[in-house]
Amino acid sequence: MGLLATLLIFGVSLSFASAERPMRRSLVFPMETDNSYVELVPQKDLDMGAFTLCMRVATELAKGNREIILFAYRTLYFDELNMWREADGRYGLFMSGEGVFFHLPELNTFQTHLCLTWDSKSGMAAFHVDGKRSIRKVYKSGHKVQNGGKVILGQDPDSFLKDFDSKQSFVGEITDVNMWDYVLSDAMIEALHVGKRMPRGNIFDWETIELIVNGNVKVITEEL
Amino acid sequence: MGLLATLLIFGVSLSFASAERPMRRSLVFPMETDNSYVELVPQKDLDMGAFTLCMRVATELAKGNREIILFAYRTLYFDELNMWREADGRYGLFMSGEGVFFHLPELNTFQTHLCLTWDSKSGMAAFHVDGKRSIRKVYKSGHKVQNGGKVILGQDPDSFLKDFDSKQSFVGEITDVNMWDYVLSDAMIEALHVGKRMPRGNIFDWETIELIVNGNVKVITEEL
Amino acid sequence: MGLLATLLIFGVSLSFASAERPMRRSLVFPMETDNSYVELVPQKDLDMGAFTLCMRVATELAKGNREIILFAYRTLYFDELNMWREADGRYGLFMSGEGVFFHLPELNTFQTHLCLTWDSKSGMAAFHVDGKRSIRKVYKSGHKVQNGGKVILGQDPDSFLKDFDSKQSFVGEITDVNMWDYVLSDAMIEALHVGKRMPRGNIFDWETIELIVNGNVKVITEEL
Repeated sequence: MGLLATLLIFGVSLSFASAERPMRRSLVFPMETDNSYVELVPQKDLDMGAFTLCMRVATELAKGNREIILFAYRTLYFDELNMWREADGRYGLFMSGEGVFFHLPELNTFQTHLCLTWDSKSGMAAFHVDGKRSIRKVYKSGHKVQNGGKVILGQDPDSFLKDFDSKQSFVGEITDVNMWDYVLSDAMIEALHVGKRMPRGNIFDWETIELIVNGNVKVITEEL
Repeated sequence: MGLLATLLIFGVSLSFASAERPMRRSLVFPMETDNSYVELVPQKDLDMGAFTLCMRVATELAKGNREIILFAYRTLYFDELNMWREADGRYGLFMSGEGVFFHLPELNTFQTHLCLTWDSKSGMAAFHVDGKRSIRKVYKSGHKVQNGGKVILGQDPDSFLKDFDSKQSFVGEITDVNMWDYVLSDAMIEALHVGKRMPRGNIFDWETIELIVNGNVKVITEEL
Repeated sequence: MGLLATLLIFGVSLSFASAERPMRRSLVFPMETDNSYVELVPQKDLDMGAFTLCMRVATELAKGNREIILFAYRTLYFDELNMWREADGRYGLFMSGEGVFFHLPELNTFQTHLCLTWDSKSGMAAFHVDGKRSIRKVYKSGHKVQNGGKVILGQDPDSFLKDFDSKQSFVGEITDVNMWDYVLSDAMIEALHVGKRMPRGNIFDWETIELIVNGNVKVITEEL
C-alpha cells in the first residue's frame, strides 16, 4: 500500500515536471530597416583561434535578390567575423578581408539550424545545415580573431556600429544563437540540431544571454 | 486479486475500443462554381483577440493560375478573417483590410496540414505547414475579430453570403477544420499534424461540427 | 528441461524460416513494340461496382513525350477500365468513354507504388502515390464495369486484343499488380506501399497470378 502510494505520487510529480516546458527567446525582424539590430553581450573575450557559431534562422528573402547579413562581429577597423548569405545564394565567412564561400540549401520560411566552425591551426572551415556537415574548406590558417569589438544581429556595420545598409539587413526570425571558442564535433552539432542543449556555449549561451535591442525587433518567448 | 481483475478488464476494453477505427468527414468540391459552399456553425462567438485555424487541404489548382479562397469569415460589411492562396503562390491572411503574406510550399493533390495563428497582443501571425512553422510576421496588433458573421468554405463572399466569383472558388478537398480562440504552441500543432486530436477546437471541432452544405459539395466519411 | 529444449528448437526453426526471403516476379518491357504484352488471368469475373488497382511501376519515358498505357481491360466493344499516363503528365482513368484526370508526381526510373480506387455509389475516384492519396474526383457514379473481357499490360488494344500502337506501349518495369473489387482504406494502401501483403487481391493476387506473356517481355524473379 505504501509502495503504491509512492508510485502514484511519483507519477504525479513527473507529469507536473513535464508540464513545465522550457521556453526560448526568438528575435523577429519584421521588415527591412537600416537601424534595427540586436547586440549580443559575450560571456568572455572574443580573441579566438577557433570557434563554433550556431543559430536557428528563417527568412523569406529568396536568393537572387540580395545579400543578407547573418552575424557581424566588428572591431574599430575590421569586420572580424561576418557570416553572410550572398546574393547568389552561397554562404560566406569573412574574417578581416577576403571570404570563403559554400553552396548550401537555400534558407526559407521554416527554421534552418545553421552552424559554422573554423580552426586556425588547420584552417578548416565548414558549415552544418540541420545537423549535416558541408565539405571542409581551407581558410586563413594561422589567423586569430581579435578582441575588443561588438557582435550584432540584423545589420552589417560598415564602420563601428554604424553605416548600416537596409539592403543588407536581416528580415525574418533568429533564435538559439550559441558560440564556443573551439570546434564542436559533427556528432555534437547533430545533437544540438535535434534539441540537445549541451555543451552550453562559452562565448554566447542563448539561455542566459544578455540582448540589447535597437529599433524594430520583436523579442518573442516561445514554448519549446 | 480484485484489483488485478479490474486492470485486465480495463486493458481488454481499451483494446476493443481501439479496434473501432475513427471516422472523419471530408468535403470534396469537385468543380469551379459560384454557388457551392459549406457553412461552418461555430460553438461560440467569434469575437477573438487571438486564434489558431487548422485544416487539411488538397487541390490541383496550381499557382500562377488564380487565387483560391481557403477560409472566409464575413460580417455584414467586413471580411473579418479570410485565408487565401494568392495567384502568385503566396498565402495571405486578411482581417478587415490589407493582408499579410507568406511564402510557403505549394498546395498539391496530396493533403497538406495547414495552420494559421495570430495574436492581437503581439500582432504575431504565422503559418504551420505539415507541422513546421513559418517565420512570424507582425500584423494588426491591437485588432479584434468581431462577432456576428458567417464562416464558409468554398467561396469568397464579396457581400454578406453572396456575390461569389467562380474564379476564386475552392476546388479540391478540405477536412479536419478546427479553430481555437487562442494560439497553440508549435509542439501542439506538430502533434495535431501527426493525428493527435487534442486539444479539441473550442470554436470549431471537426468531430462534432455542424455543416450546412450548399450546391455541389460531396461530404465523404473516411476511415482514419 | 524438455520444455526449454523445445523452445530452443522452435527458436532456431523460426530463424531459418525468416532466412527464406520471399520472391516476387517482375515484368521488364525493354523497348517500344506494337506486339509485346502480358495478359493477366483474373481469379473471378470483373463485373465490378468498385475497385482498387495497385502496381509498382518504373519508366524513363518522360512526360511531354507521349502517352503510356499502364493497364487495359477491354471487352469486345469497350475500353472497360484503362489507366494512362497522359502525354501532358496527368494520369487518366477511362471507363467506356470520357476519362477523369489527376495531377500526380511524374513516374521515373525508380519504382512508384501506384493505386487507383473508384466506387460506383459515390462516384469517388482517387490515386494513391507511394501511400499518399490524391484529391478525390467524382466520376461515373452509378456506372458498372462489365465482365467478359481481357486484362493486359504493355499495350492498348484499340479493338479486342489487337490494333496496338507502339507509341502508346509501356517501356520499363511493372510488378506487384493487385486488384480488389472493393475500395481499400487509405491506411490499407499505405500498408501495401510499405510492403505488407494483406489483404490479398481477390481479382488479381500477384503472388499466385497466372501470366500469359506475348512478345518481348522478360519475367524476372527478384528477392524482396
